[in-house]
Amino acid sequence: MSGGISTSLNWPGLVEAYRPYLPVTDSTPVVTLLEGNTPLIPVPTIAKIIGRGVKVLVKYDGLNPTGSFKDRGMTMAISKAKEAGDQAVICASTGNTSASAAAYASRGGMRAFVIVPDGYVALGKLAQALVYGATVIAIKGNFDDCLKIVRKMASKYPVTLVNSVNPYRLEGQKTAAFEIVDNLGDAPDWLCIPVGNAGNICAYWMGFCEYHEHGKCDRLPQMMGFQASGASPIVAGKVLEHPETIATAIRVGNPASWEKAIAAQEASKGAFNSVTDQEILDAYRLLASQEGIFCEPASATSVAGLLKVKDQVPTGATVVCVLTGNGLKDPDTAIEHSNNPLTEGIEPTTAAVAEVIGLKPTEG
Amino acid sequence: MSGGISTSLNWPGLVEAYRPYLPVTDSTPVVTLLEGNTPLIPVPTIAKIIGRGVKVLVKYDGLNPTGSFKDRGMTMAISKAKEAGDQAVICASTGNTSASAAAYASRGGMRAFVIVPDGYVALGKLAQALVYGATVIAIKGNFDDCLKIVRKMASKYPVTLVNSVNPYRLEGQKTAAFEIVDNLGDAPDWLCIPVGNAGNICAYWMGFCEYHEHGKCDRLPQMMGFQASGASPIVAGKVLEHPETIATAIRVGNPASWEKAIAAQEASKGAFNSVTDQEILDAYRLLASQEGIFCEPASATSVAGLLKVKDQVPTGATVVCVLTGNGLKDPDTAIEHSNNPLTEGIEPTTAAVAEVIGLKPTEG
Repeated sequence: MSGGISTSLNWPGLVEAYRPYLPVTDSTPVVTLLEGNTPLIPVPTIAKIIGRGVKVLVKYDGLNPTGSFKDRGMTMAISKAKEAGDQAVICASTGNTSASAAAYASRGGMRAFVIVPDGYVALGKLAQALVYGATVIAIKGNFDDCLKIVRKMASKYPVTLVNSVNPYRLEGQKTAAFEIVDNLGDAPDWLCIPVGNAGNICAYWMGFCEYHEHGKCDRLPQMMGFQASGASPIVAGKVLEHPETIATAIRVGNPASWEKAIAAQEASKGAFNSVTDQEILDAYRLLASQEGIFCEPASATSVAGLLKVKDQVPTGATVVCVLTGNGLKDPDTAIEHSNNPLTEGIEPTTAAVAEVIGLKPTEG
Repeated sequence: MSGGISTSLNWPGLVEAYRPYLPVTDSTPVVTLLEGNTPLIPVPTIAKIIGRGVKVLVKYDGLNPTGSFKDRGMTMAISKAKEAGDQAVICASTGNTSASAAAYASRGGMRAFVIVPDGYVALGKLAQALVYGATVIAIKGNFDDCLKIVRKMASKYPVTLVNSVNPYRLEGQKTAAFEIVDNLGDAPDWLCIPVGNAGNICAYWMGFCEYHEHGKCDRLPQMMGFQASGASPIVAGKVLEHPETIATAIRVGNPASWEKAIAAQEASKGAFNSVTDQEILDAYRLLASQEGIFCEPASATSVAGLLKVKDQVPTGATVVCVLTGNGLKDPDTAIEHSNNPLTEGIEPTTAAVAEVIGLKPTEG
């Protein structure tokens, strides 16, 4: 027991667990759903594909309270907003950020406002924000207009902006790196991570560096960022007007943290690469059907990327792939891209079922 | 640190964590996704409704790897099937059991077969089973026919039945009671739990009793079981041919563990009560919009029940409500029964948005 880490069955949420490393004081009202402490799961099938004694684990952040890594940042952002006396938060988001903001605002007794583009949004994507009690407002405009509106709202009205420009978000997100080090006893050799807005790769790097400065790990990982090929501005080195990929959570054409992400990659001797939607879906199916782990398509980008550059992994290395979200967030993709169709209209007899399955009776 | 409990950041899954209490040996190949160790979250809004110094916490088992408490039983059932040398498992299920069976079979390198009634099943309910690589077979018949087929298949073919008749399921499920005691330092006064097939209430009772025998807790909780009023055979004292409730996970007319559940209730001086679908939905919305916790409708039955009989809770008591599944399993209900409709067609100006929200500009 060290570094303020509690025993498993009294995990107090990440702010309390890592309090000395976070910008909170005794007077910060911590708004928590006991987020963090997510499992680091070995994925032997994927390690076997790479071979050469490489160990691979996934940080399954889809098991956070609202189903994504966003909860790590949101417990910080909402706690600080509450400390500042704010009674409402606002964001422009059609996905994980809105779900997390709505949940933590509800938990903290604050209102949450979510601004989305008119006509653009599938209601399924907003199910969580709605059930957590957020007020969802669709404006006549595109996503950029939404971002402009929420920034203006936060400057002119008594609401806190909790989009990724909120500085506390990355502070909370960096704790995932702490957890990985606390699990493994040191930093991994490689950290593979999906890159959309590029905030998370910066948060992880910040976490590893801070833990290294405090002597918690002896080394730093190479930061390996992966973008979807249809939404790969950092790999291409230019802003994309119309990014497109099945991995909607990383469908970003002009990442907010672009420069900081490049700095992390360079300092860590890492790299940025892109993977196709086909490669993402292959990794998504592989994780579910071989390892029993169901993640969002965007999350599978880290594993798809690792497999794409597998010959570059040092022999015997330890690699952690970040899975940012829970597959339950996107059941439509699961149904559409599963390789296992439903077999219908079978007679209700063991013989008929056995024939479909291809089993022979037990002998004797 | 006691009783084989590991520190949080090395949680090994529930079989390793509670090995002395489970029917496993050194030669059992443990198939795990690091299930268990789910958060026990205080719900102050609900406690406040009850008043009189009552403390209320929810055991949020929706944060297990496949999103429900079924994973607790499945890690045991699949590990034992693998130990027995089986290469396939089978179940009749349209929901959480099929998802969990498929995931753990995949993890264990085994095949999974899921038998469902023809034409009955919404594909969304099977998204997880399909993505985890199960073979889903729809037969011409009803759910009872499916149950008959899987029992026959397991007796005549080399497949293990992992429906609730599998004895290892309850062994794994009882660990949730261990975790609650390890969290609180003792058993709660009341344990409120949704009752469908009635296996889980038996598993919890078994867990509390075993921990009590080993001196891990000084007392035993009163077991408070709650059924949906349209599917309340135990409360009514008779089998229901056509159970109906929005809480599909507990829509059971003839519970498999009926007698054992009655025994647990009587031994613990607990009670069975029923709640209406309206009360279930009210509790479901309350949990999400006031506490930031999104569960399956069936899970909210425990909180709805607690609120219904709140005047019977002893002053100053500690109450734990079991939330069996993740709300992400059923996004349709979230959208349909949220109180917060989308506001569309708003002009993209701060003034227009502020008017919808009802905010005035910050002064100065």
